[in-house]
Amino acid sequence: MARYSPSVQNLITKLGSLPGIGGKSAQRLAFHILSLSKKDVDDLTSAIVTAHDQTVKCSCCQNFTDSDPCPICSDSNRDHSIVCVVESPRDVAVFERMHEYRGLYHVLHGIYTPLAGKSMNDITLPQLISRLSSSSEIKEVIVATNQTAEGNATALYISRLVSPSGIKVTRLASGLPMGSDIEYSDDLTLANALKGRITI
Amino acid sequence: MARYSPSVQNLITKLGSLPGIGGKSAQRLAFHILSLSKKDVDDLTSAIVTAHDQTVKCSCCQNFTDSDPCPICSDSNRDHSIVCVVESPRDVAVFERMHEYRGLYHVLHGIYTPLAGKSMNDITLPQLISRLSSSSEIKEVIVATNQTAEGNATALYISRLVSPSGIKVTRLASGLPMGSDIEYSDDLTLANALKGRITI
Repeated sequence: MARYSPSVQNLITKLGSLPGIGGKSAQRLAFHILSLSKKDVDDLTSAIVTAHDQTVKCSCCQNFTDSDPCPICSDSNRDHSIVCVVESPRDVAVFERMHEYRGLYHVLHGIYTPLAGKSMNDITLPQLISRLSSSSEIKEVIVATNQTAEGNATALYISRLVSPSGIKVTRLASGLPMGSDIEYSDDLTLANALKGRITI
Repeated sequence: MARYSPSVQNLITKLGSLPGIGGKSAQRLAFHILSLSKKDVDDLTSAIVTAHDQTVKCSCCQNFTDSDPCPICSDSNRDHSIVCVVESPRDVAVFERMHEYRGLYHVLHGIYTPLAGKSMNDITLPQLISRLSSSSEIKEVIVATNQTAEGNATALYISRLVSPSGIKVTRLASGLPMGSDIEYSDDLTLANALKGRITI
């Protein structure tokens, strides 16, 4: 272990605890921060504190927002009869970038992973259920969790909970991505593409 | 471009300006920070501010330190006749981890890259020259800049400046890394290994 001063070592440890930042990156970031001017450091820390202080979870869709309800939930031009359930706020950003979806969202902030000790109550599933039961407007729930074992399990669980109330529960299509080569496709994706084939 | 609130967008921009953090990582980090508790955010920002406030450049070797002169420069058990010139503080950490070098260091904080507009005065080369001319103790300068065109150019430049004063200027050996396969070695490395071959 290299010898750094305690304050630098503490900074490296803190940076290394962030997601996607390994030991080497943490050192690189720490020394970059040390070489910044006092003003740049103040800008960085105040950006962190300001964003954290001003951001709350929307009481309706649970997405991060600076106003509650968030701009999407309070937009009367959007289709309030469809709710797209996603794992993270970044997924909302991806959907919005596409400009094809005009409904609302529900952000789970995680996924049901019993093996990692994450239960249905650690994600915002209870909030989704109470939201659906208190609104007569919602007709369809699109479960847009990732195409993983956990994502599929969560989708199935939501479907079983919600379907009896008469709300339609759908899942994004699984198939070959655009521009992909069948030769390099994995078996599961190809099987899903075959099952979900459409008439042209 | 995805729509985020101004404070979140500002945080993403600030994080994205750090080295090695791309757009996607910046978003991921920002949303991780938003999900932290107030205490964790305070810990992170105070780690940044504390490390930045307590760290200065050692007036002798220019390495980051919390005491001036740094523990290495003020250690009388070390060999004060050899100075190892490195590009960054991280390189010092790598040398120290090796436990084979007992001399002193000089941190350039960069490298001579005229194409990127970085001149000899943007790195701590003037400080190295004045340090060498004011000390009668130093007998050897090991130039341990990276094995790149810029690293080699800087080494050559240092050698031309320093050699006339009678101080020996050396460069780390270039050759095949331990555990490497000759089959996969590049031509330059193999040529250097051949030129620098030693008698066994």
